[in-house]
Amino acid sequence: MRTYPSQQPAGTLQVDTGRGVAAAQGFRAAGTVAGFKDSGGPDLALVVNDGPQHHVGAVYTTNRVSAAPVQWSKAATADGRAAAVVLNSGGANACTGPQGFQAAHRTAELVGEALGVGAGDVVVCSTGLIGVQLPMDVMERGLPAVVEALGGDDEAGAAAARAIMTTDSVSKQAAYVRDGWTVGGMAKGAGMLAPGLATMLVVLTTDAELSSDALQWALEDAVKVTFNRTDSDGCMSTNDTVVLLGSGASGVTPDEFEFSQAVTAVCHSLAQQLITDAEGASHDIAITTVNAATEKQAEDVSRSVARSNLFKAAIFGNDPNWGRVLSAVGTTDAAFDPDKLDVTINGVTVCRDGAIGDPREDVDLAADRRVSVLIDLKAGDADATVWTNDLTHDYVEENSAYSS
Amino acid sequence: MRTYPSQQPAGTLQVDTGRGVAAAQGFRAAGTVAGFKDSGGPDLALVVNDGPQHHVGAVYTTNRVSAAPVQWSKAATADGRAAAVVLNSGGANACTGPQGFQAAHRTAELVGEALGVGAGDVVVCSTGLIGVQLPMDVMERGLPAVVEALGGDDEAGAAAARAIMTTDSVSKQAAYVRDGWTVGGMAKGAGMLAPGLATMLVVLTTDAELSSDALQWALEDAVKVTFNRTDSDGCMSTNDTVVLLGSGASGVTPDEFEFSQAVTAVCHSLAQQLITDAEGASHDIAITTVNAATEKQAEDVSRSVARSNLFKAAIFGNDPNWGRVLSAVGTTDAAFDPDKLDVTINGVTVCRDGAIGDPREDVDLAADRRVSVLIDLKAGDADATVWTNDLTHDYVEENSAYSS
Repeated sequence: MRTYPSQQPAGTLQVDTGRGVAAAQGFRAAGTVAGFKDSGGPDLALVVNDGPQHHVGAVYTTNRVSAAPVQWSKAATADGRAAAVVLNSGGANACTGPQGFQAAHRTAELVGEALGVGAGDVVVCSTGLIGVQLPMDVMERGLPAVVEALGGDDEAGAAAARAIMTTDSVSKQAAYVRDGWTVGGMAKGAGMLAPGLATMLVVLTTDAELSSDALQWALEDAVKVTFNRTDSDGCMSTNDTVVLLGSGASGVTPDEFEFSQAVTAVCHSLAQQLITDAEGASHDIAITTVNAATEKQAEDVSRSVARSNLFKAAIFGNDPNWGRVLSAVGTTDAAFDPDKLDVTINGVTVCRDGAIGDPREDVDLAADRRVSVLIDLKAGDADATVWTNDLTHDYVEENSAYSS
Repeated sequence: MRTYPSQQPAGTLQVDTGRGVAAAQGFRAAGTVAGFKDSGGPDLALVVNDGPQHHVGAVYTTNRVSAAPVQWSKAATADGRAAAVVLNSGGANACTGPQGFQAAHRTAELVGEALGVGAGDVVVCSTGLIGVQLPMDVMERGLPAVVEALGGDDEAGAAAARAIMTTDSVSKQAAYVRDGWTVGGMAKGAGMLAPGLATMLVVLTTDAELSSDALQWALEDAVKVTFNRTDSDGCMSTNDTVVLLGSGASGVTPDEFEFSQAVTAVCHSLAQQLITDAEGASHDIAITTVNAATEKQAEDVSRSVARSNLFKAAIFGNDPNWGRVLSAVGTTDAAFDPDKLDVTINGVTVCRDGAIGDPREDVDLAADRRVSVLIDLKAGDADATVWTNDLTHDYVEENSAYSS
């Protein structure tokens, strides 16, 4: 019996969180201070793909209210080609009307001119407050410096990762190196989870020689079981963007399954770093539903618990309140018999057959930041894990005291 | 143009919040201390219908994990007949297995014996912690006293309203009196809103002479636009119950529309009292969506905003963060053009045509506990209001510090 599910999906590979987008061959990166942030911290990043291939896969927010840079970048990556990604923090450029779209377009033109590539090959990402115009004078002054700072070493990649931070307390990187090819990545956020400044942005790079379709498939597979199951507060951003750039510089074409596993491993590491750093959280909660009729139903059940404020507040209070788990499960359409449900928290089956199980006093939630909730539907053989955080005073404070 | 929607649905009638279930003829009520609560406060209530009719309409939680008293009462009211409602606080009798159902059944038998009616005509309601067996020795000792205390005056009704309180800070009553017939009611909670102790319980009484079908229809209509649109934290309880008892004692058969309006008015008042008293809230927020293609879409849009933790935390911080409104609207399937959306907060149209509108500084959220959010979809002529609260430190505290 699985009583303490791993925080990792099965088959996850070991990644290096000390390296990022510059780990793969054929990429340069930079992060500098342009002046978007009042704090004076780094706020402009650039990742350049020097080829020989300029392939791209991309996944964007499904929010129907999408930011101008998302609208621009969707069009730019539709042909599977991209040569660079420019990212700014300190302003989301969302809900900014025609002027906002013009700002994203102009940013791509400026980057394209500086790098000698077409504007249509430049992906644009922004993160920060919604409903404020991006100051283009800051962008125009800042771009030459970030282009000048481009470098191919890990320090350059780390600088880029730092420049996209908003309410993040640490930068997030991950890289997987194998047999001559590499997948690297950086993230800020937390998009689907807790968009304090409204956005999850992820840039991944690889030197594997693959078609843009292969990149897209691997990325979609990875996002489905990592970022899309990382749900800190149920809020979906207007700016979420995940981009995978392929340079082909290694000259190696990996097995597609191996490549997909590598991209998933890097995305999983970045997603876990986002959850661990989510605004105001004091517990990281893995909610695994097993023996569901379908994987979709398993995910629905786990997500409904992940979105219960009452459950999340209980975990903050170190209270293994399984009644709040059952209440959330009962709102779903998944196949189950309410009188057969089991709930196991940190290895203690506190609810058995829909009623009182082992003593809730046996559950220790104070010892570890990590919490495991296992829901057994006894209705099939599919399972899924959704990762979330507890609902804390600090979450309320960070999201009420500052406009973001 | 509607810029500051009323907190009341159109056509709401004036109700008296100083009177409750005993306001209608043919009813007696009582509330006493049985001993379910550690606090020693009143925790057992009884409402008796002395006829001549013994009609009932009822609406229960749609949560598939429903408490034993809900399962009992659904069966008991299926025939449209009920003679009494017994309610205890201090224990939800939910997720308690066969022993829990037996406890609900036994409670109905004891009340039936004491009143000289069949157990099948006794509705049972419980509220409190999920996953704990109801102490039947307490119930058996407590019932004679509550039967003994039954009275037909408003003080008896008020005692019943006090005995069903859990985390409520005040008891909730409302009555509408008209041309010889009356609708009275009491509530605790907050069910669909913030089930601190897991439940919204509402008992309504009327002396109007109507069939049980007429009672059921009026109740369903009223619940749809009142309790079901009162959504403090998106969590649905295992115990929610709304019962309307009809005695026919007035001998008056009102027009069905007028009766429906009266039931809606009483439910609306009780729902507003629940929102105002919701756990830890500092703002009461009315979210009205206008010019939607359908009423369902208007409700979906309002509810998606009502469930955004980021938006609710911003309101706690007196921040008119319209970007978080648009982010929530964008997750729905409602018909709208993102570039045409208007958002008005407390009369200031801060977002116009999906972009920056009037200055957010003009919105004053600190002056009044009540907040009005108006979302104009420009896609039709339907509208709906959902009422919610802000997300506050006190909400987290109340739901984390105490097991409930």
